[in-house]
Amino acid sequence: MINASIITIGDELLIGQVIDTNSSFIAQEMNKAGFAVVRRVAVGDDKDQIKKALDDEKQSADIILITGGLGPTADDITKPLLCEYFGGKMIVNEAALANVEHLFLNVFKRPASAITERNLKQGEVPDVCTVIQNKRGTAPGMMFTQNINGKEKIFVSMPGVPHEMMGMMKDDVIPVLLKKFTAAHIAHRTLLAAGVGESFLADLLKDFEEALPANIKMAYLPSYGMVRLRLTATGNDAAANNILLDEKFSILQKLVKEYMVTNEDEPLEKALGKLLLQKKKTMCTAESCTGGYIAHLITAIPGASAFYDGSVVSYSYGAKKDLLQVDKNILETKGAVSEEVVKQMAAGALKNISSDYTIAVSGIMGPDGGMPDKPVGTVWICVGDKGNLHAQKFQFRFDRERNIRFTALNAMLMLRKFILNAE
Amino acid sequence: MINASIITIGDELLIGQVIDTNSSFIAQEMNKAGFAVVRRVAVGDDKDQIKKALDDEKQSADIILITGGLGPTADDITKPLLCEYFGGKMIVNEAALANVEHLFLNVFKRPASAITERNLKQGEVPDVCTVIQNKRGTAPGMMFTQNINGKEKIFVSMPGVPHEMMGMMKDDVIPVLLKKFTAAHIAHRTLLAAGVGESFLADLLKDFEEALPANIKMAYLPSYGMVRLRLTATGNDAAANNILLDEKFSILQKLVKEYMVTNEDEPLEKALGKLLLQKKKTMCTAESCTGGYIAHLITAIPGASAFYDGSVVSYSYGAKKDLLQVDKNILETKGAVSEEVVKQMAAGALKNISSDYTIAVSGIMGPDGGMPDKPVGTVWICVGDKGNLHAQKFQFRFDRERNIRFTALNAMLMLRKFILNAE
Repeated sequence: MINASIITIGDELLIGQVIDTNSSFIAQEMNKAGFAVVRRVAVGDDKDQIKKALDDEKQSADIILITGGLGPTADDITKPLLCEYFGGKMIVNEAALANVEHLFLNVFKRPASAITERNLKQGEVPDVCTVIQNKRGTAPGMMFTQNINGKEKIFVSMPGVPHEMMGMMKDDVIPVLLKKFTAAHIAHRTLLAAGVGESFLADLLKDFEEALPANIKMAYLPSYGMVRLRLTATGNDAAANNILLDEKFSILQKLVKEYMVTNEDEPLEKALGKLLLQKKKTMCTAESCTGGYIAHLITAIPGASAFYDGSVVSYSYGAKKDLLQVDKNILETKGAVSEEVVKQMAAGALKNISSDYTIAVSGIMGPDGGMPDKPVGTVWICVGDKGNLHAQKFQFRFDRERNIRFTALNAMLMLRKFILNAE
Repeated sequence: MINASIITIGDELLIGQVIDTNSSFIAQEMNKAGFAVVRRVAVGDDKDQIKKALDDEKQSADIILITGGLGPTADDITKPLLCEYFGGKMIVNEAALANVEHLFLNVFKRPASAITERNLKQGEVPDVCTVIQNKRGTAPGMMFTQNINGKEKIFVSMPGVPHEMMGMMKDDVIPVLLKKFTAAHIAHRTLLAAGVGESFLADLLKDFEEALPANIKMAYLPSYGMVRLRLTATGNDAAANNILLDEKFSILQKLVKEYMVTNEDEPLEKALGKLLLQKKKTMCTAESCTGGYIAHLITAIPGASAFYDGSVVSYSYGAKKDLLQVDKNILETKGAVSEEVVKQMAAGALKNISSDYTIAVSGIMGPDGGMPDKPVGTVWICVGDKGNLHAQKFQFRFDRERNIRFTALNAMLMLRKFILNAE
């Protein structure tokens, strides 16, 4: 197989100020195309460290993908460094320069006077590279080649701004790599299981896993109380690969049937949306402690308006009373985090938003607000329809962010079960 | 300075199925403690690749931090590999074993019969390591030492489950490292600027940046139309370091005054929340296209209930009419994405939720739903209070996810300006 390494550049990666999402995206695209990413390295805006990374990675990888450090500011040192590394000199690339001007005038809608010397410098590239025009930003991509131990290695430098890099990967880099190399066939099948631990699954699937052929690997990816199970097949015959993989995946699905939420590599909210679409039903939410997070997860899915009507984020007591008609006395006697209130929230949402199903949540996410009888992590979730409401208490034991996520995921799991049981 | 490398292990990192948030967190903590992270490497669940990473990183780093591959399943190979690498043999660690049993019985509230052989195996560790007990999960952490070219190098292996690793880093790893090494003093000052491009800022700050002393570095971190500017000082004298850094940061703040949103390393929603708290005011939101994302950002802040009342996520026409009293005729003649509707949404929110300020947004996020006169990325944002509403049209040009983020950030920026101008 053709091996690739990813080098991401930027001090911000080494002090943890940003999360490196670029590497994941590049790895995904390379994988889909049939290249194996074997290493990812992050280094700072430091000449020696960048050179060392280039020297190291080119020893074993056939393709070295680099992002970051192409901006117009002084801490962006990648371009001159690559120029020196590959023994070139900087020249103006007319197309790249025209692109800078085009972006400023026509896309950013700025006057010509807003284009600074620094911006124009982005039209310069080493004369030893093949330029990849950047349709989304001012920094051009660059492709270099170098012969290492008789093998031609490809180096691709892309901007670090995620959407610019993403567009360049898809539109330009992957097509060029597929022309230069014969990629292997890599295929994945992923399912999502809930309500079961990783160890329990591992025991259940021990025999299955041991009997898998050498070119199929299984991975467990636990995430927020759920486990994604992934089968990966590698081979040169795409058709044979897929047939074998489908056969094994079908056995796997039967083995974990009672825990399986979806047999696609998709988040729970998408699986829930598909179920609603299939039933031609809609849903709404009434969120207190999750503060709109469930609504956000669902509406992040393109086309969510076909099955999602809206949410009342009733953070304050006032909002609970005014927008969901929660009884003032019940709020005061039982407290906002109670079975009665969460049921009234659900009923209020169904009454005020014309949906078939609803989710209502109320809880204490922390770090403050815990009480002896209701510690941080206490959450009431209610799901249902106009005829039937089902409420359940949960006790999470995490930090605020994780409590919000666990509440959202469990609420969606509960509604999914409610809809399936209603059949 | 003491150098550290981070090695993250897992096939999922190389196929892009998960985003590596562990590395960022570890880098943050190391940095705060005064250690320099110089490289981050991610490798798959592959014996040779893990060994190669250990061999490589120990050459230059004093501390090698490893996460991942400690789970109970077959793809978790880190523990036996480390045992072999450091020449040990596996033994039962009574405290780690007791911890597995304690977690199952008392924290997960499972019966003793639910504890499998696999779970008990997590109580085994190499006899050549110092065990770090894991208070949050079943896989213990391990610390190894090795003498490389006359220097003692420290290797720390932690579980890959983020909250387990985070707790272990803070409670155990950092304190131990601070005892073993004399850390340097590293300090950062960060501000957030909006409404200005990176190149423009770079020109504005050229002289300032060139005049910075050698131990202070400046970095530009562009993110969703805003730029974070960070000054980092490194030195051995913490007091002198801080005085110099404060002096330079104060000059920097004056230079970018008109663009500065906050002079702390905090997100915009936190800066907005602080402004509201300071004014003793509250806000609410009425969200169509952002689908609860603004509410989520704000309520992710601990204590948000002191300044945030709630949101109406009016995704459907029905929700706009029923929950916000948007005029049916206006919806039909002007369309949901219009100045009139977004103003009615804002007025409806202020009427139905008793807040001082509000944000209302309505737009077309894509990929579908665009029209010739309202292409994908068309967004109306309205901010205001009971006396005054201010609406503005935006034309974003990104994908769904980015359009949602840009809308949320611009809406919060607009409200912040509105509040400041109202003074």
